[in-house]
Amino acid sequence: MEPVTQAAPSTRTTVRRLPERGNYDRARIDAVLDEGLVCHVGFVTGDGTPAVVPTTYARIDDHLVVHGSPASRMLRSLKDGVDVCVVVTLLDGMVLARSTFHHSMNYRSVVVYGRATEITDPADKRAALDRLVEHLVPGRTEHARGPNDKELKSTLVLRLPLDEASAKVRTGPPVDDAEDMELPVWAGVLPVGVAVGQAVSDGASGTDTPVPEHVAGWRRGPVVVAE
Amino acid sequence: MEPVTQAAPSTRTTVRRLPERGNYDRARIDAVLDEGLVCHVGFVTGDGTPAVVPTTYARIDDHLVVHGSPASRMLRSLKDGVDVCVVVTLLDGMVLARSTFHHSMNYRSVVVYGRATEITDPADKRAALDRLVEHLVPGRTEHARGPNDKELKSTLVLRLPLDEASAKVRTGPPVDDAEDMELPVWAGVLPVGVAVGQAVSDGASGTDTPVPEHVAGWRRGPVVVAE
Repeated sequence: MEPVTQAAPSTRTTVRRLPERGNYDRARIDAVLDEGLVCHVGFVTGDGTPAVVPTTYARIDDHLVVHGSPASRMLRSLKDGVDVCVVVTLLDGMVLARSTFHHSMNYRSVVVYGRATEITDPADKRAALDRLVEHLVPGRTEHARGPNDKELKSTLVLRLPLDEASAKVRTGPPVDDAEDMELPVWAGVLPVGVAVGQAVSDGASGTDTPVPEHVAGWRRGPVVVAE
Repeated sequence: MEPVTQAAPSTRTTVRRLPERGNYDRARIDAVLDEGLVCHVGFVTGDGTPAVVPTTYARIDDHLVVHGSPASRMLRSLKDGVDVCVVVTLLDGMVLARSTFHHSMNYRSVVVYGRATEITDPADKRAALDRLVEHLVPGRTEHARGPNDKELKSTLVLRLPLDEASAKVRTGPPVDDAEDMELPVWAGVLPVGVAVGQAVSDGASGTDTPVPEHVAGWRRGPVVVAE
């Protein structure tokens, strides 16, 4: 459990459940955002019901950026300025206690509330699209062909300020009740993370391009090897 | 891209963006739900703004179950019968195309819409709590102490029917434009999955309990080893 190092930037940003796990420090928030691969975007649809859409994202300084087709309902809603809630969740471990009641997960998550705006300036838009690829696969934009004007026009890019963001973190071993400590039950943490397999070429190139280092060396988060 | 094998069970369940990726087959939906570790629960708060909360879950037949403290705002909202949107997202691969525009992810996701109800019957509640642990760590409930009456009373368990569920899936290599095929750029898929580390005992047991097989042998999803 992490100390609260800073005040929450807004009421809705305040971590309610288990507030001792809450954290409003930007460096910690940025670290979670920069490690995640996917965010879940929550918004309220026109008929008042909730929607949640998983999508890729990237952080650029004090904003998150998301992108996609202008036909996306999610992007169209966000572009119209509706309230949005974006969550990035990283799983770090299964926490196995002596009682089922105290089972838990070690995790780091970030919640961002706010309203998104469109990035219309072509240079900013191009930079954001590059960053979206670099966030997922660092080094990739040096190799792949960048967006042409037609692709740029057919992509909607939005940004969301990080003014209202909070992190929630659980780390460490299980916390069992005193009367359970002598039970003959193994208790501890099973670390989990992002596993990476062998890159699979699509086999469609004219020449047999070797797997480049930015692909072969790709890792995400604390290295966890499956033995 | 997957064929649509069945009609969508409701309008809001219909996959809108890239409908060729949509699927309403329960076996496929169940497979995604049974593999995931965390879901993201979206709902509309009392002041009309969206909230998204990551949490563990399990599937029991035709329902998802979630649980937690009765003090949880999310659970209290859901218990009151608000509309909810639950998403489970599994990442399978980074899709690296010759153009940045055609970069993508291979994934399997499920969205469930509906309204949750509380499980109040003590036997059903106990079974749901067992299932929540078994979903995360199969075999665990044989070892760990099950919930006592006090723990049962201090846990809220809700279930959400799977009547309005849909899956969305992307598989396979990148799809590049014809004019990019001769670019000297490696293109293909980098498989990703759930990595498992060495179990770490909390070292607090009276005896040195060995790591049991349900912990040492824990795996999730298609096995991806980090070389």
